[in-house]
Amino acid sequence: MSRIFDSAADVEDAFYDAIDESDLDKMMAVWADSDDIACLLPMQPLHNGRQAVRQLWKGVFEQALKIDISVNHLQWIERGDIAIHLLEEVVRPVGSAQRQPPIYAGNVYHYDDTGWHLLLHFNSPTPPPAGVLPPLPGGQERRNQ
Amino acid sequence: MSRIFDSAADVEDAFYDAIDESDLDKMMAVWADSDDIACLLPMQPLHNGRQAVRQLWKGVFEQALKIDISVNHLQWIERGDIAIHLLEEVVRPVGSAQRQPPIYAGNVYHYDDTGWHLLLHFNSPTPPPAGVLPPLPGGQERRNQ
Repeated sequence: MSRIFDSAADVEDAFYDAIDESDLDKMMAVWADSDDIACLLPMQPLHNGRQAVRQLWKGVFEQALKIDISVNHLQWIERGDIAIHLLEEVVRPVGSAQRQPPIYAGNVYHYDDTGWHLLLHFNSPTPPPAGVLPPLPGGQERRNQ
Repeated sequence: MSRIFDSAADVEDAFYDAIDESDLDKMMAVWADSDDIACLLPMQPLHNGRQAVRQLWKGVFEQALKIDISVNHLQWIERGDIAIHLLEEVVRPVGSAQRQPPIYAGNVYHYDDTGWHLLLHFNSPTPPPAGVLPPLPGGQERRNQ
């Protein structure tokens, strides 16, 4: 069942807590109770609808490997009852000191009479670090943020 | 300047037309006139704000290599004045018969008193084809869509 959240930021905290705790019920409580929710994790096909999204996270949480995830906010886009948060996630196996490159993440939240919930989560790779990245086509300066 | 679009689908048509035509003014006319717009193209850092988004597409359109892009709709998520379209894009150099793997794309549109415009565009890789893809963690069946 969905929980009532008072802000998009509260949903986001619960989303990453659910990952930290491998808690499937907590994870599903952050998503909107709707069959059009969608989740796009790295190297996985698009999953949409609560049943498919639940199966996806069930698989992630059943991994023997526990992960630690930290996030860095890049930008919020807010329009009325919609909030879009763009972040960098750094994911690493618990206990590992190995430094992984960050990945981009985007979370789209919606407010309705059940409070704020997650509609869409996606990940996308970040480009290689400066010096490794090929120049932008057209030759203009690259803009790292 | 922004154009007035009557639907998210009209914005989307103009967005892909702008890519087909390498038309920077047409491209910028689809984006909301706001400094929080954001664009995440493959292998590029996040660009946000009209100036950065314009620079990004200027670089793409100045490539000597002309590209052909075709799209396949996967899902629409609609909530009042917001529409989220999830698609597959197939991008190939014009004149090339080489088959590229599709990439995921997401477009978030917003309606206000200037009509519908684009707030966010992102791309994300698709997983390798079935048979190449490692099984989902947890061992459950993979769900291709």
